[in-house]
Amino acid sequence: MVFWSQLGELKLNELKLGEGPVAVRLYQAANQHQGMPGFLNATPSSLGQEAPVPGLAFACAGNAYLYNTVEQVASSDRKVLVQQAEKDTALMNPCILLANCDLKHSTYVYWFGAPAFQLPAGTRVVERAASLASSLGAELAEQVTAASQELFVGDAAPKPAAWFVALPEDTGQRTSVTLRPLADHASLDPGSRVLLAFLDASPAADALGSAARNLLTWAAARWRPAEPVALVSMRARNGRFDPGASTLVRLALPPVAAAPAAVPNWETNSRGKPGPRKADLGAAADPARLAASAVDLNLRLMRWRAAPALDVISLGQARCLLFGAGTLGCAVARSLLGWGVRHLTLVDNARVSYSNPVRQSLYTFEDCKGGGAPKAERAAAALREIYPGVRAEGIVASVPMPGHVTSDAEAAQALQEVQRLEGLIQDHDVLFLLMDTRESRWLPTLLGAAAGKLVINAALGFDGFLVMRHGLGLRDGDDPAKPRLGCYFCSDVVAPLDSTTGQALDQQCTVTRPGLSGIAGALAVELAMSVLSHPEGAAALSGPLAAGGADGPLGARRTCSAAS
Amino acid sequence: MVFWSQLGELKLNELKLGEGPVAVRLYQAANQHQGMPGFLNATPSSLGQEAPVPGLAFACAGNAYLYNTVEQVASSDRKVLVQQAEKDTALMNPCILLANCDLKHSTYVYWFGAPAFQLPAGTRVVERAASLASSLGAELAEQVTAASQELFVGDAAPKPAAWFVALPEDTGQRTSVTLRPLADHASLDPGSRVLLAFLDASPAADALGSAARNLLTWAAARWRPAEPVALVSMRARNGRFDPGASTLVRLALPPVAAAPAAVPNWETNSRGKPGPRKADLGAAADPARLAASAVDLNLRLMRWRAAPALDVISLGQARCLLFGAGTLGCAVARSLLGWGVRHLTLVDNARVSYSNPVRQSLYTFEDCKGGGAPKAERAAAALREIYPGVRAEGIVASVPMPGHVTSDAEAAQALQEVQRLEGLIQDHDVLFLLMDTRESRWLPTLLGAAAGKLVINAALGFDGFLVMRHGLGLRDGDDPAKPRLGCYFCSDVVAPLDSTTGQALDQQCTVTRPGLSGIAGALAVELAMSVLSHPEGAAALSGPLAAGGADGPLGARRTCSAAS
Repeated sequence: MVFWSQLGELKLNELKLGEGPVAVRLYQAANQHQGMPGFLNATPSSLGQEAPVPGLAFACAGNAYLYNTVEQVASSDRKVLVQQAEKDTALMNPCILLANCDLKHSTYVYWFGAPAFQLPAGTRVVERAASLASSLGAELAEQVTAASQELFVGDAAPKPAAWFVALPEDTGQRTSVTLRPLADHASLDPGSRVLLAFLDASPAADALGSAARNLLTWAAARWRPAEPVALVSMRARNGRFDPGASTLVRLALPPVAAAPAAVPNWETNSRGKPGPRKADLGAAADPARLAASAVDLNLRLMRWRAAPALDVISLGQARCLLFGAGTLGCAVARSLLGWGVRHLTLVDNARVSYSNPVRQSLYTFEDCKGGGAPKAERAAAALREIYPGVRAEGIVASVPMPGHVTSDAEAAQALQEVQRLEGLIQDHDVLFLLMDTRESRWLPTLLGAAAGKLVINAALGFDGFLVMRHGLGLRDGDDPAKPRLGCYFCSDVVAPLDSTTGQALDQQCTVTRPGLSGIAGALAVELAMSVLSHPEGAAALSGPLAAGGADGPLGARRTCSAAS
Repeated sequence: MVFWSQLGELKLNELKLGEGPVAVRLYQAANQHQGMPGFLNATPSSLGQEAPVPGLAFACAGNAYLYNTVEQVASSDRKVLVQQAEKDTALMNPCILLANCDLKHSTYVYWFGAPAFQLPAGTRVVERAASLASSLGAELAEQVTAASQELFVGDAAPKPAAWFVALPEDTGQRTSVTLRPLADHASLDPGSRVLLAFLDASPAADALGSAARNLLTWAAARWRPAEPVALVSMRARNGRFDPGASTLVRLALPPVAAAPAAVPNWETNSRGKPGPRKADLGAAADPARLAASAVDLNLRLMRWRAAPALDVISLGQARCLLFGAGTLGCAVARSLLGWGVRHLTLVDNARVSYSNPVRQSLYTFEDCKGGGAPKAERAAAALREIYPGVRAEGIVASVPMPGHVTSDAEAAQALQEVQRLEGLIQDHDVLFLLMDTRESRWLPTLLGAAAGKLVINAALGFDGFLVMRHGLGLRDGDDPAKPRLGCYFCSDVVAPLDSTTGQALDQQCTVTRPGLSGIAGALAVELAMSVLSHPEGAAALSGPLAAGGADGPLGARRTCSAAS
């Protein structure tokens, strides 16, 4: 089943809107009672031309077409595809895979084809032997069998579909034979007596299966032996190599090569009629793995058409530190999850109160009981409940604020808090200021600028809001003609003082039109991602952020995104 | 405790930024071992001047000041407040309540004051009797006791703090006495011998308690009896009326009335010093009731200052029908909860898939397991988990779509679905179209217009979105000069056809910048609320919606709110 996941990943991340074809190397089991259902099988590494093939099976090489719509799987022009397979007899046993990957539901609609070549016109049967020994003599038969066993039974890495032996002169002397890969045929004397050994998947003991016909077609097209070719059909039964069931047919090829002709051979569906089948990975797979592959689906799909240059994987690696786990904090955390961010830390020292859950999207009624859960911790837990793969941490801490009088003891504690915040800021790439007072933004603004971190500030009014990116101020070596952005306090004429004491209830609570937090929170994250998606902004993920410049893939702008 | 909740409701919904004073009628228990702690007590109906008073207690009437800040409770000028109480002796037993209601945390900081009047200067004690009988004679004492018992013991409705008897001439004959309310004093002959009976809360048996002094001050200011006044102090002990402990003091009032003078008398805090106390309802109260009063706090606070004319209660009564419980549906449902909407129905026929929770804010990882929970039902359950008081229902149903070929059997089923949708639409006030295809919006658009419902449409692109209000088209009797709004399909040149068949994965999934759903969902709800807050829009809650007009309290606009 993992083959399908890999096909889906290939489509999602590399092919995107492209439909291929991509090379696949499937296999056909010579042992009918083993392996997966279906006449063609795949291993997890079947993508590519060098995929290994399991024992007692032979490789079928060909192309996979990963169509964008499910309708194309059934409606594509299969005749043309078979004709293409006819032209490329290098494939030996050709195969075709038509597929559509529904990555949203982890279902895969697919249709395998294994076109089989017809015997070259004019091929003549010279000899038909029920056993190898009766044709080759006991000794040679045994050597061929032993060599075949070694080559066909193991799970060893890439092996060709068949092997050949240049038979020794019939001198009556003991001779050891060596099976050689077909690719070595160039070194062969055209007049040699040739023996081709192959694994035969044909259910009929006395009929030439498709593997035999494909092999002969291949040989006819390549070296056209003057002498008849002996085809040794090696069999497996009940999971074991069965040399006693092997047969030999000697054929004389026609003097002139005709164009190879294949008969289409498409797999039947579950009702026994030719048609696509469906693989549903969702029903069986591990939920955590399903989530891991599905969770960023929409992000990756952005790169198909909407924003091909967008490096969503790097964006998701931004380590984000959120100051405030209230109305804005919840909205920002959720938007970051949507952007694939997997490392979030929330700082808040409040508890969930009964008025919170209807506006703060990470909390429920249960969280309010018994005095309320600590917001930071509860928010982090809720993020993990949304997607267990996220690394979310809640820090119950307060941010020291100017204007709030502290005693000597409180001052010592505030110093500890500052040091803790400094450490947190160092460990993150992007800071979001999402508190409910002006003065609490002051210290993180300062520390963020000192550490050269990207700082995004958001604040709500009743029917207006502010979303802005902080700059870093002019530094040594900066070009004064290219001033950096300012910060919240640069743009604000009022110093950060105590704004909470003496406030009426409607000034303490977040009295806003309920929709604003969703809008402002989302814009704050979009702004951050636009900055980070910019080539210079992306540097913020590994070092101090450089000044903004031209537009990036998402249109990063130098100016603040502020609404009245 | 319920008194505090009512005080909070009064502040939140009526006083708002006003601080009163509002009339309160508290009581003081004459029985020291009964009732709530504190020297003044309140009943759930203590707001207002006619609140009943429990048995064995007397009323204290006065003013409550509901300050906007907690600091004011301690810092207000209490001297001025006592002087105001001195001026209004009609209050008999005056009381003052200073309070600040923190409705967010259900905590109430309060300070009771019960200023007590000093005896009118020049008052002279004429007689001090240890029992009623020794002064009044057994028969009269028994009658006064019996009448007092009837009046002071029961929980009967409003009763004055004291009663009086105009004593009969001392003829030696049997006379029945009737206690009369003090308010009847106007009918009294100033020369009468008067007996004033009252419940005495004084802990000292032989001292004149504050109730006696207040009563005498009241009488002196009103009718200034020429004859001495007999004060009958009725006592209670251990929860029972105790007439045997009653005493009588006869006092002669001074000939000239001086201005009444009160001594301030403020309750002590938990440390035994004068100062505010704190009542924490959050710790003890029923979570469901706490949530019910807190959940709309931010909405009600809007009316204090930001939007005084906004009828948030009516807005919350809008019954909302959401088509689609995906990215937009979740965002819209959450915003509606924030607006106080308590009746939501979600229609969707999909299941929660692993790619959903990071963008669809009502689902978690758990909801994806085992093929996924039905979105509509899960979303409704999640809304109830956020606030149990919401009436949320999930309907697993599909919306018949033009362009999607149906068999005869499917057509019959589609007809049933149409009828079901018609019923649903009739039962709601506002429709939100939040699906992921154009054609699925078509039928609800039609049905919504036919039913005259407010329809809000929202749709996402990659980095753009559309949010619009549907109009109803021109109808009989409409003024053609005032055309109504159009709908989504009026503005769109493409007919509603099958847009899903043959779509690539990035066209089937909602491939958008993750923040857009939060922005568009919030704007859709803000638009709906702006329309409904408009006087004409509000009519939509009780009948078909009229055309838009001038701005409402939230600035409802006639034009579509569409972003590119």
